[in-house]
Amino acid sequence: MFSAEHCSAILEQIRARKPLIHNITNYVVMNNTANALLAVGASPAMVHAVEEVEEFVALSQALVINLGTLSKPWIKSMRIAADAASGRGIPWVLDPVGAGATELRTDTATDLALLFRPACIRGNASEIMVLAGTTADKPRGVDSTRASADAIEAARRLAKSTGSIVAVTGAIDYVTDGEQLIALANGHPLMARVTGLGCTATALAGAALAVEKDRLAAVAAGLSFLAIAGEIAAEKSPGPGSLQVHLLDALHQLDAATIQRRLKIVA
Amino acid sequence: MFSAEHCSAILEQIRARKPLIHNITNYVVMNNTANALLAVGASPAMVHAVEEVEEFVALSQALVINLGTLSKPWIKSMRIAADAASGRGIPWVLDPVGAGATELRTDTATDLALLFRPACIRGNASEIMVLAGTTADKPRGVDSTRASADAIEAARRLAKSTGSIVAVTGAIDYVTDGEQLIALANGHPLMARVTGLGCTATALAGAALAVEKDRLAAVAAGLSFLAIAGEIAAEKSPGPGSLQVHLLDALHQLDAATIQRRLKIVA
Amino acid sequence: MFSAEHCSAILEQIRARKPLIHNITNYVVMNNTANALLAVGASPAMVHAVEEVEEFVALSQALVINLGTLSKPWIKSMRIAADAASGRGIPWVLDPVGAGATELRTDTATDLALLFRPACIRGNASEIMVLAGTTADKPRGVDSTRASADAIEAARRLAKSTGSIVAVTGAIDYVTDGEQLIALANGHPLMARVTGLGCTATALAGAALAVEKDRLAAVAAGLSFLAIAGEIAAEKSPGPGSLQVHLLDALHQLDAATIQRRLKIVA
Repeated sequence: MFSAEHCSAILEQIRARKPLIHNITNYVVMNNTANALLAVGASPAMVHAVEEVEEFVALSQALVINLGTLSKPWIKSMRIAADAASGRGIPWVLDPVGAGATELRTDTATDLALLFRPACIRGNASEIMVLAGTTADKPRGVDSTRASADAIEAARRLAKSTGSIVAVTGAIDYVTDGEQLIALANGHPLMARVTGLGCTATALAGAALAVEKDRLAAVAAGLSFLAIAGEIAAEKSPGPGSLQVHLLDALHQLDAATIQRRLKIVA
Repeated sequence: MFSAEHCSAILEQIRARKPLIHNITNYVVMNNTANALLAVGASPAMVHAVEEVEEFVALSQALVINLGTLSKPWIKSMRIAADAASGRGIPWVLDPVGAGATELRTDTATDLALLFRPACIRGNASEIMVLAGTTADKPRGVDSTRASADAIEAARRLAKSTGSIVAVTGAIDYVTDGEQLIALANGHPLMARVTGLGCTATALAGAALAVEKDRLAAVAAGLSFLAIAGEIAAEKSPGPGSLQVHLLDALHQLDAATIQRRLKIVA
Repeated sequence: MFSAEHCSAILEQIRARKPLIHNITNYVVMNNTANALLAVGASPAMVHAVEEVEEFVALSQALVINLGTLSKPWIKSMRIAADAASGRGIPWVLDPVGAGATELRTDTATDLALLFRPACIRGNASEIMVLAGTTADKPRGVDSTRASADAIEAARRLAKSTGSIVAVTGAIDYVTDGEQLIALANGHPLMARVTGLGCTATALAGAALAVEKDRLAAVAAGLSFLAIAGEIAAEKSPGPGSLQVHLLDALHQLDAATIQRRLKIVA
């Protein structure tokens, strides 16, 4: 279903094809997301104006929509872009940041998930549980109050109801199409002390979906690129400042041998 | 009044309670601010939509409002958020970036300071003097044209008129409630070559106010976390690129022994 | 026409005069642009509100307008600011990010270039060719599909029609006033794996134009600061994460001896 070989093959495809990834993402992580996409070999663009998102989606191989610093004008652009991607068969990924924290976030995430058929929804446990309707618990701002394992059934249910691959990230990352489940155990606790690495995971899933038709494997590969690079970076980092630097270096240097040696598929 | 022990106790409280800090801040520093808050142990969120700020303030333990990349729609959100925080007794901090440079900034900062009772106002000397009405001098863009010591009387006056703790940062950082004055001599000149460290100081003051009722000590502690970490970072940095990396590492590693050894309370 | 001595003299002027550089730039690069301007000795500000841009331009020694994350409200501010700068004789630089990719970008870049007489237009080959009307090829999102050398004639033509210095950056950087042409061969391929270094080049050209009346030399100097610092940084960087850190350090440490030793003027 998913293997180190498959993961490496997807990385090679990204490097060979340099897919253009259109991001409508939040102000906090734009720079990091762009740099992570470049480091893995993709070609990022951040484009959000309502007048040009449809035109830009048509040039792109994948679209990433992230609700981090949400506002009404951006929601309008997100809907137009998601609709355009869906209509043209361009894979798009939803990152429902803060779903459950406020009504605006829950409603926007729900609408985008249900109306525009994302190829993938990637969130933390609280966000996925809220979208699946299995909890009404408030998250802690944009942070989850649950472990990723608590959201496995919610993820399956959300995958079935939306037709999306659903990924719940945390100490263990889970990826499901509603039936099959992949569990990945790479990463490092220090990664939680750097803002926006979940957003980076989402964007890398987008890059993988741009080049790979097996959507379950693509999402698992995108998450693995980040988790392996983060793990390598954390091992040599005294704190979160160094971790960010080493993370981009490790993504840039990631290769088949490293994936073979590091990738921990635990289910 | 303020001591290394008190400073360390506040740091421990932040790490133990991981307060949610709601930031309405500028595009330039959002990433750095979020990372500094994470490094010190708090839980940051950047949320600005007029539709959700009130709801989000209610979830938070402190609010930080920063005028860096001001615009009309954001001012509306700032007012709603500040009003909500003030009404609920949630401490909030004002960073009046560029007050004095343009009418929009002076007016916005003055309104927020006078109408919504910030727990703390943190600025450079020019900004504090403009808000206190003791100068009509133009700052140099968003940079001060005065040394922090020049603004001590302005800070006292502003503290008395608003009921806020007022902090003026520079080579020496001054913190006052209008009567008592704390002067802190940590930091390093290279810190002025990194954008937005004043904004980081403001956010860390917010994190400290979230866990400590003695507001004067809380603000002094927040400023000290940054100044000590910046000093440690600068000592091993050939330039401002390295300084940023080491700064986050030093914030993450900051502990009572380091504070005891480093903290320079000079008045 | 341009020499290492002239390049060093411009750097010294920036450090001595600390010009205030007003940036209306994109969300992705704001932090990096501000830090690069600080590292080279200038004083950056990011100000975009329609209510204050005219007032702020009047305080500044140069203006930088970058279309990276374009939207209608920002275009309005860009036009007001460019008009104000042009009317007051304050040099301003245009970075037409993504011209050719969408109608909004091509139209906005063309209008700004033709109506408000920029001192300099800095783009990649695709952008400059689109603005010069010598191609209707789509770029790859915001990336060029052409080598910089392909755009030399387009650059000359655009310089003649607008009266601006035109710079095309790539493996070789070309700078022309329509007659004279400077070709610069510094830099490193790893720089293309970091987002927004083109935007940084534009901002540094703005800093140089703020202190030097010979506009051709000023733009060449601004590009050279970045290319030399990037080359030094890349030589010690295993990947794009390290490169960003070392780049700011190298800009901070840049001096006449380094420029003398490194600068490669190839035409």
